[in-house]
Amino acid sequence: MAEQNNVYQTRIQRARDLMRDEGLDMLFIGPSSDFRYFTGHPVKQSERLTALLIPYDGTPTVVVPQLEAPLVAHLGDDFEYEIWTETENPIDRVVERVRRSGSEAIAINDQIWAGFVIQLQHELPNRSYARGVNVLKQLRSVKDQFELDLLKEASRRTDNAWESFIKSVKVIGRTEEEVAEDLKGALADHGMPDVAFCIVASGPNGSSPHHHTADRRIQAGDPIVMDFGGIHEGYFSDVTRTPVAGHVPDDNFTTAYDIVLEAQQAAFEKIAPGVPCQDVDRAARKVITDHGYGDYFIHRVGHGIGMTGHEDPYLVEGNAEPLQAGMVVSDEPGIYMPGKWGIRIEDSVAVTASGGERYNHVSREITILE
Amino acid sequence: MAEQNNVYQTRIQRARDLMRDEGLDMLFIGPSSDFRYFTGHPVKQSERLTALLIPYDGTPTVVVPQLEAPLVAHLGDDFEYEIWTETENPIDRVVERVRRSGSEAIAINDQIWAGFVIQLQHELPNRSYARGVNVLKQLRSVKDQFELDLLKEASRRTDNAWESFIKSVKVIGRTEEEVAEDLKGALADHGMPDVAFCIVASGPNGSSPHHHTADRRIQAGDPIVMDFGGIHEGYFSDVTRTPVAGHVPDDNFTTAYDIVLEAQQAAFEKIAPGVPCQDVDRAARKVITDHGYGDYFIHRVGHGIGMTGHEDPYLVEGNAEPLQAGMVVSDEPGIYMPGKWGIRIEDSVAVTASGGERYNHVSREITILE
Repeated sequence: MAEQNNVYQTRIQRARDLMRDEGLDMLFIGPSSDFRYFTGHPVKQSERLTALLIPYDGTPTVVVPQLEAPLVAHLGDDFEYEIWTETENPIDRVVERVRRSGSEAIAINDQIWAGFVIQLQHELPNRSYARGVNVLKQLRSVKDQFELDLLKEASRRTDNAWESFIKSVKVIGRTEEEVAEDLKGALADHGMPDVAFCIVASGPNGSSPHHHTADRRIQAGDPIVMDFGGIHEGYFSDVTRTPVAGHVPDDNFTTAYDIVLEAQQAAFEKIAPGVPCQDVDRAARKVITDHGYGDYFIHRVGHGIGMTGHEDPYLVEGNAEPLQAGMVVSDEPGIYMPGKWGIRIEDSVAVTASGGERYNHVSREITILE
Repeated sequence: MAEQNNVYQTRIQRARDLMRDEGLDMLFIGPSSDFRYFTGHPVKQSERLTALLIPYDGTPTVVVPQLEAPLVAHLGDDFEYEIWTETENPIDRVVERVRRSGSEAIAINDQIWAGFVIQLQHELPNRSYARGVNVLKQLRSVKDQFELDLLKEASRRTDNAWESFIKSVKVIGRTEEEVAEDLKGALADHGMPDVAFCIVASGPNGSSPHHHTADRRIQAGDPIVMDFGGIHEGYFSDVTRTPVAGHVPDDNFTTAYDIVLEAQQAAFEKIAPGVPCQDVDRAARKVITDHGYGDYFIHRVGHGIGMTGHEDPYLVEGNAEPLQAGMVVSDEPGIYMPGKWGIRIEDSVAVTASGGERYNHVSREITILE
């Protein structure tokens, strides 16, 4: 426990170093992965505010509703507590702490509900309110070893689930939802009962990258975009494969599939410390564009992954920030032919001192499912 | 479809009537149940902004990332669209619409992520930003018939799941998690695969009202707080029962149980249009306090329920707003003895023209599970 607490205290100290650089007096963090990052404690968003206040000087404060106070008792005296009762407005406790600390420049984590922030702004109009992203993204995007180990394990379990799933699943004649239930079951069987998401998009549905898995029955010749991930001790996995039901639909599909595969490899090979994020996107996009499919690759090539499924750094045109060792990103180019099918191939990739390390190792070749 | 669209257009028109009363020019609504309420379309929170802008005058606009645009195509021409591409900042589209509409007073739904709102405030500092809650809570808390039917059906399915669960479940010697999985399975078997939440808190864990279900093994003599709900077409159920494993622990428990039961009935009988919300809390609290357990009832007696699990109106001391016919609330007093056990009994109750109507009908008496 002492060693674990050390992890969190180290993170808070790093946050303070970055707060100094940004001229910030206070970080106001709502229920989110940021809260868990600094405390180890997972907390859900709700109308009852739980929050963490990190002043540049002094002990951080956990604001918590009385009926959830038992859940944070284990955090001990590394934190102070504002335990509010059911008839209070928790923002009054935040206002009190901001006043007492003399904080002027307040930064806020992106995911806190705006309703709380607007109340704070109305109570204390003469402060500055900024996004905390400059502090938080630097901390959160570069993983420490504790985090890298958990992310790798999340990917390993997900790979095992996939191998088991493709050995036994039947797809032809079944609905997307039924197949998704099987895939979720495989994740649970391999130690990932908290399924983060599970997209099964068959045939023409695959051309909508974020298709809502539904009751379409899968037919022979359908490509099936399967984008799925689980959560291991708070850390996410994220994999996509595009198997086909029975047989490939036609040669055009196979051609496009090979282009996506080549693009995914090109992006992977680009990944290294110091490389601008957008260059990874460009590497994949160049392959797809050179083959004439540029108009059908309609999303960024990837995103950071950690205690959330999508986070900084975003591998997207316009993001010139350099990759750093310790970042973990998705590499997921795709081609989407409206009304026909979609193809996406995705692995999680860690940025190492010298390049990229794939965290997923299951085959990326076309897999036939019956 | 035409009739359904009518529901949403009627809701938007009601929002505008309330905007006029509040002097608001624009509602800015992020991914949330509010978004679904006005469009019928469910959307998840993500770093890619989806939003709805309702100007006091003119057609509402859906802001949507390009890769999710296919998911909202069915909304048709009741809305305009701002479809943003991966290399854009979606807030630029919001800024453009706010400018073009000449909106000065902007109201924001509580659940949108603060990061988006702070960006908007920085881009357009000379506007006023308020919570949209005065408009939204009036709309959302008073359900239309379409909503009441769905809420009643959600409760009916949940009741059926409970009846089936208590007939077959084994609890003694099993972990809270295992028992929770059985309860979730029963919900799925009765048409509620989207389990909203499922707390199983046994013995001393029951004294923490929001206990995280974990690996404690249930022993004979343990009371078990089970607080669970599912989602039916976007509408929530919410029930709590406190069965015991094998036998009641002692007479003190039985005494306290009967007090909670009496308090729950007292709150139920108080529910009627025009009654201040806090009076329902007081009715239950008086019963518990008169019996000397007031210090152990550490939360409000209830909350609204609809497209979220907790929403206005809150039945809590300090809330003098009157109940209105069409509201649906939870009635859930409890007694929590630290280190020993907890007791909570909860039903969903609709406010009718003349009083309250329970939506849950399963027995509230002590149930013995083996």
